[in-house]
Amino acid sequence: MENTYISRKVREENAKFSRLNVIIIGGGLVGSLCACVFAKRGYKVTLYEKRPDPRKTTACNGRSINLALSHRGRKTLRLVGLELSIMESSIAMKGRMIHPVAGETSSIPYDLVNNQCIYSVGRNFLNQILLNAAEKHEGVTLVFKHKLSDVNFEENTLKLINQETKEIITETADLIIGADGAFSCLRGFMQKRFLYDLTQSYIEHGYMELRVPASRGHKLRNNHLHIWPRGTFMMIALPNQDSSWTVTLFMPFKQFKSITDPEKLLNFFSNTFTDALELIGKEELVQTFFTSNPAPLITVKCGQYHMGDRFLIIGDAAHAMVPFYGQGMNAGFEDCTILNNLLNEHKDNVKASIEAFSEQRRQDVHAVCDLALYNYKEMRDLVTTRSFKFRKTLDGVLSKWLPEIWTPLYNSVSFSHMEYHKCLENKLWQDKVLKRIFQMISTILILVFATIIYVFLSVK
Amino acid sequence: MENTYISRKVREENAKFSRLNVIIIGGGLVGSLCACVFAKRGYKVTLYEKRPDPRKTTACNGRSINLALSHRGRKTLRLVGLELSIMESSIAMKGRMIHPVAGETSSIPYDLVNNQCIYSVGRNFLNQILLNAAEKHEGVTLVFKHKLSDVNFEENTLKLINQETKEIITETADLIIGADGAFSCLRGFMQKRFLYDLTQSYIEHGYMELRVPASRGHKLRNNHLHIWPRGTFMMIALPNQDSSWTVTLFMPFKQFKSITDPEKLLNFFSNTFTDALELIGKEELVQTFFTSNPAPLITVKCGQYHMGDRFLIIGDAAHAMVPFYGQGMNAGFEDCTILNNLLNEHKDNVKASIEAFSEQRRQDVHAVCDLALYNYKEMRDLVTTRSFKFRKTLDGVLSKWLPEIWTPLYNSVSFSHMEYHKCLENKLWQDKVLKRIFQMISTILILVFATIIYVFLSVK
Repeated sequence: MENTYISRKVREENAKFSRLNVIIIGGGLVGSLCACVFAKRGYKVTLYEKRPDPRKTTACNGRSINLALSHRGRKTLRLVGLELSIMESSIAMKGRMIHPVAGETSSIPYDLVNNQCIYSVGRNFLNQILLNAAEKHEGVTLVFKHKLSDVNFEENTLKLINQETKEIITETADLIIGADGAFSCLRGFMQKRFLYDLTQSYIEHGYMELRVPASRGHKLRNNHLHIWPRGTFMMIALPNQDSSWTVTLFMPFKQFKSITDPEKLLNFFSNTFTDALELIGKEELVQTFFTSNPAPLITVKCGQYHMGDRFLIIGDAAHAMVPFYGQGMNAGFEDCTILNNLLNEHKDNVKASIEAFSEQRRQDVHAVCDLALYNYKEMRDLVTTRSFKFRKTLDGVLSKWLPEIWTPLYNSVSFSHMEYHKCLENKLWQDKVLKRIFQMISTILILVFATIIYVFLSVK
Repeated sequence: MENTYISRKVREENAKFSRLNVIIIGGGLVGSLCACVFAKRGYKVTLYEKRPDPRKTTACNGRSINLALSHRGRKTLRLVGLELSIMESSIAMKGRMIHPVAGETSSIPYDLVNNQCIYSVGRNFLNQILLNAAEKHEGVTLVFKHKLSDVNFEENTLKLINQETKEIITETADLIIGADGAFSCLRGFMQKRFLYDLTQSYIEHGYMELRVPASRGHKLRNNHLHIWPRGTFMMIALPNQDSSWTVTLFMPFKQFKSITDPEKLLNFFSNTFTDALELIGKEELVQTFFTSNPAPLITVKCGQYHMGDRFLIIGDAAHAMVPFYGQGMNAGFEDCTILNNLLNEHKDNVKASIEAFSEQRRQDVHAVCDLALYNYKEMRDLVTTRSFKFRKTLDGVLSKWLPEIWTPLYNSVSFSHMEYHKCLENKLWQDKVLKRIFQMISTILILVFATIIYVFLSVK
């Protein structure tokens, strides 16, 4: 009798959990994937997006650095059964192809041991797949053209304004997720609250997207991420499905500004990116350069991601980062897996789960923000140095010999689920070990050399 | 003829300059002093404050750590002819009076050489004097109960909402100053703009104001800032004109929370602040503690203070800091002097002046924010150590002997107009010099000691 009662109680509780109401603000990549994850948990999800449905409008240009999907992102896609279909439409990149100012290009593989790849995928394409997948779930409602206009953290309510009719609706839910990007509106409200730590910082460089058309795309070696490292600036290219390439120029804003006319631009390109100029095309380059503005690159670090009992920010809203480690989307997707695990662990207790999310995620996303900043220097500058190539080779050899012990930084970040802060700690430990080894080797060499001289002199 | 023309042109230009229209947002200490400075320049000033006129309402309680006026603040007051009248109503504090858990109190002077003091002054009193002074100027209009609601940086317009009628007015001016405090509304709008760097961070400690009534005030030795340093927390007391003292308890929020009933509170005070408990009074302590909440302490650092051609934030809006160096108000007042100098230098060219302000002020206010954080550790902990007292004595001796070369950190911050970042550099240089000297002394001592032993042994 008691057992029956308990099991009924548990069933009731479970039923209650499975009917959790969730609001997601933001229908970008992380928001729409998060909707799928929650739908799979049996939650009722309403997703509000301020823009019109991207599936019904013509694709918007620019402002979307191509995406490099790696392990962390794939794991969450797998969770909702979308990994395979998305992988099929992505292009493997097995290494960096370095274009020097003059001379031959050279390839540096991402993974010397297991030949693992990162995958180039289009933002709009991916967003559409995720929105379609979310919409297929019975419990998911997508609402477009609704912008967050006010939040009450005590009463767990939101106000949203219909962008067309200007009508304001008030909403509430058991869990409210802000996945509204680097300039998150929900974070803006959190930031004004008691004891909210926040840092937003821009780098002095901006980016501009250019394009190699499909007709000339075959001239760039496939299955690579192409880099034109130039010390203080750089250009990269990622492949698209239609054989075109999305090219992104990263450069100090001042330098963008200093290029004031087509002649200067073409001179700059023909001196600095000789091979790329041909591929992009002179006319197209001039056209794009002088009709678009370089976009800024922001890093956002927060002290916590939850607020009150029900609010949580994830993805870029929680940790916008510069794009140089290709981890922005991957970290955002990983947020969904982590939140899903915490909701399992805490049996759908929202308050406990979102508090644990803040606690668990903070140092990891701070670490990956720092890694992304560091990687800009690596990509635009260090990548051309001998010491970099030597270290990559050494890392490859060591991880082949000692696969259990030696995971190179890039591999732990892109091809594992190791917590980001541990990736960083691991790298620092490796640096220390290598330094010690080199010190030992040089001491031994000096001793050997001294012995030889001694023997030589005494024999003489 | 040409000369006449030029001089007329110059006069016209000057006349134009002197008619500059300025809007100041915020009628606190910095806003109202800034209005006086501009009025003296012949500008037409409109000051908008969101709260009602503080001169017509009963003084609001709490939330205002007593202020310690020092050199930088006094300089700007002097500029507008208010220094003497304010100094007359302030109380000199010549040193810190340290209250240990048990045993005698001891005094550590702020300035061992010239006996310079900092001055305790009440926030409300000072604010009223400054508002009265501003209002006396013909060109100054004070408008209360108007809150900033929107900003257009391109069109140089503001929207302000009348807090009573809810009417919205649109305003513009040649120069728009945000002096609207640590949670600045104008900064909030700047923060959303292109490339705006910002850090806001809270410490884990809060503060609560208590009071020693005038009837028992004489029991605390006058002309001192009293400190009860307790390692991880502390209490301070600053004198008021009416012989009462404003007491401020700084403590981790967790510790505040852990004191849940009057018994715990009285136990805590009688064990930790024995002498203070008598002065504050048990009943008053319990009453205040359980009817108020600890307030947070924020640090705000910005990458720039101007926006567009006409907007500038100053004071806490530009650089909120923790109160432990007594420099919040002083740095804000110094902003007014610096802005005034820059407007002189750039002949009232607003754009050039506010850009130069950002450039010139950034590293200084970042430095004083860091110094203020550091000084909390000094006040609550280091101040009790022997090494601290030794260093203070050593600094005193050295600055007496070498007044041109050796200015101790506290003196350069509080009793000079040295740029804050130079105060910090100067301190680091002093630390290095002292370290070298101690190394030299120990080497010499070892040598002397070795020689003595050698001589002793050889004689034997």
